[in-house]
Amino acid sequence: MTEILKRAKILEPSNPNKSTALFGGEASGILNWNDLAYPHFYTLRQRIRSLFWTANEVDMTQDVKQFPTLLKSEQEAFLKIIGLLATLDAPQTVAAMKIADFSTDPSVKSLMATIADQESEHNHSYSYVLSSVTTLDKQMSSFEMGRVDEVLKQRNERIVDVYNEFALNPTIENVLKVMVYTALLEGLFFYSGFAFFYNLARNNKMVGTSTMISYINRDELEHGKAISDLFRATLGENSKYNNDKFINWVYDQFRHSVEQETVWSRYVLADVDGINLREMEGYVKYRANKMLRLLGLSEIYPDYTDNPMKWIRAYVDNFDDTKTDFFEQTSRQYVKTSDANGFDDL
Amino acid sequence: MTEILKRAKILEPSNPNKSTALFGGEASGILNWNDLAYPHFYTLRQRIRSLFWTANEVDMTQDVKQFPTLLKSEQEAFLKIIGLLATLDAPQTVAAMKIADFSTDPSVKSLMATIADQESEHNHSYSYVLSSVTTLDKQMSSFEMGRVDEVLKQRNERIVDVYNEFALNPTIENVLKVMVYTALLEGLFFYSGFAFFYNLARNNKMVGTSTMISYINRDELEHGKAISDLFRATLGENSKYNNDKFINWVYDQFRHSVEQETVWSRYVLADVDGINLREMEGYVKYRANKMLRLLGLSEIYPDYTDNPMKWIRAYVDNFDDTKTDFFEQTSRQYVKTSDANGFDDL
Repeated sequence: MTEILKRAKILEPSNPNKSTALFGGEASGILNWNDLAYPHFYTLRQRIRSLFWTANEVDMTQDVKQFPTLLKSEQEAFLKIIGLLATLDAPQTVAAMKIADFSTDPSVKSLMATIADQESEHNHSYSYVLSSVTTLDKQMSSFEMGRVDEVLKQRNERIVDVYNEFALNPTIENVLKVMVYTALLEGLFFYSGFAFFYNLARNNKMVGTSTMISYINRDELEHGKAISDLFRATLGENSKYNNDKFINWVYDQFRHSVEQETVWSRYVLADVDGINLREMEGYVKYRANKMLRLLGLSEIYPDYTDNPMKWIRAYVDNFDDTKTDFFEQTSRQYVKTSDANGFDDL
Repeated sequence: MTEILKRAKILEPSNPNKSTALFGGEASGILNWNDLAYPHFYTLRQRIRSLFWTANEVDMTQDVKQFPTLLKSEQEAFLKIIGLLATLDAPQTVAAMKIADFSTDPSVKSLMATIADQESEHNHSYSYVLSSVTTLDKQMSSFEMGRVDEVLKQRNERIVDVYNEFALNPTIENVLKVMVYTALLEGLFFYSGFAFFYNLARNNKMVGTSTMISYINRDELEHGKAISDLFRATLGENSKYNNDKFINWVYDQFRHSVEQETVWSRYVLADVDGINLREMEGYVKYRANKMLRLLGLSEIYPDYTDNPMKWIRAYVDNFDDTKTDFFEQTSRQYVKTSDANGFDDL
């Protein structure tokens, strides 16, 4: 029998400040960062919060001029992919806050608040990009894609199911499943979309948009690590789910997600020059291996332990705390931890 | 009969992107900032997000040296007030995310995510200040205050009741009540605490801490405006609560809160030189009038339409986008809107 998680109150001064469990435990609601059940969550939150950026700081002047000069196929893929990203990033804000809502550890609530804020800026970016380069009509249809495009709807079906099931039926098992799908979103589902924009950038097209995508990419990599960390800790505290049935469910979702991402990338990138679809499929498998390792599980694509799409590394590889970013458009002030920017993992 | 708000799913692609109501409505979960039910929420979120700062950027070197040289009464008040602020700011992260969770408008969810993140940094600040200036033992007792200090517990009683009642029983009426208490926290309850630190600063004491407090203060003013705006919009959509009974409840909470804040400020500031307790009481009443006006209601302290504690203005009055802040310690990069920083309202 699965127990529904109790909805945590906001302040319970009779409980201790240090929480007794990540989910289903007790805590006062007062957060003392020097008195945590998992002290390393402090570093995790600091690292993530230092990623702060805003869409408006990216100069879109050249993109505005270039968009009408793109091939029609590129314009269409551009709008479709923004539509996909917008559809998948909006629930990330909400999912982070729902995980927070049911966690009984105040440091998890705080960490998730920061992740939710950054996810909300990703969404803002998509509106910002579209309002820069296209008409209101086209912006509207791009944001409608997640509602009407059959390929996209099918691709998103399991995400919608798992996320909504947790919202309606918040159990430990369902929060673990939401974390698996959050890891899949942050670490795998966005990446053929990202590749499209980096491919434009290496042809000197839409460099403003790609800069924004690279910031989003960097955030997602760090969020993926954090959520994987939380997944492992939650599974550790609830070891009855650490069984073949549940772990096989996770592997199944990864296999299914790789298939869906591959179908999607063929659908949306078929007419785009410069992206090798076989390489793309390999890259998705490589990302799946990466995320499985972060979740504490085994790789399932032994032929893809290395990144087969080498050129993509250049687009997210050289952030650090002194240089401007690779596009040299804006200086990045808030990332102080050069060894922690996560791009060794791309 | 009061209806419990339906727990919103995360993605419902069959619903429209533009939400049909702030609470209890329908929306797909896809956020298009160019297609909002309340377009000005865009500006509201932009303004708030531009306030971004981090505790670590404040230099605490001088504070570390000065703390042991403070009068014993100042040290005690310092630790008590940090304890109060930590107790009241922790639930703000959570309350913002709970409002988000029950809102059916994606722009409200996004706005609340940003507020929740900033509130989480306020909490980080209190840990950061205490770990800079005092021993782990004293840090721990400061964070225990909200659990054990009877005066503080009594002061917080109604906040705890209203917040927890919403968590357990999420109705439109209860979300309106949570917004009233959020406005009270952001716009009134913190202010005798803030005054303590500004008073130290005008005597050249603990300037690092006061700098941090001034950033927190600025955030709270903007959050108070945003939540008041959301309160008015929610009341507008649910006009059956715009009746004498509910509005009188709001006035009662304000009167009660002013009393509690006055009792608290006497308890905690009695032995502190430089703060006139009568002026402090007047300042709290002035803040109550301010917040009531923001909520669309009438002033209840006609003798306090002006700020009677003039000296405090200097400590939060001169942020803008070119100058460094009043303490000239760090440059403030992310506030680009000089006319919108809210300090005309202090």
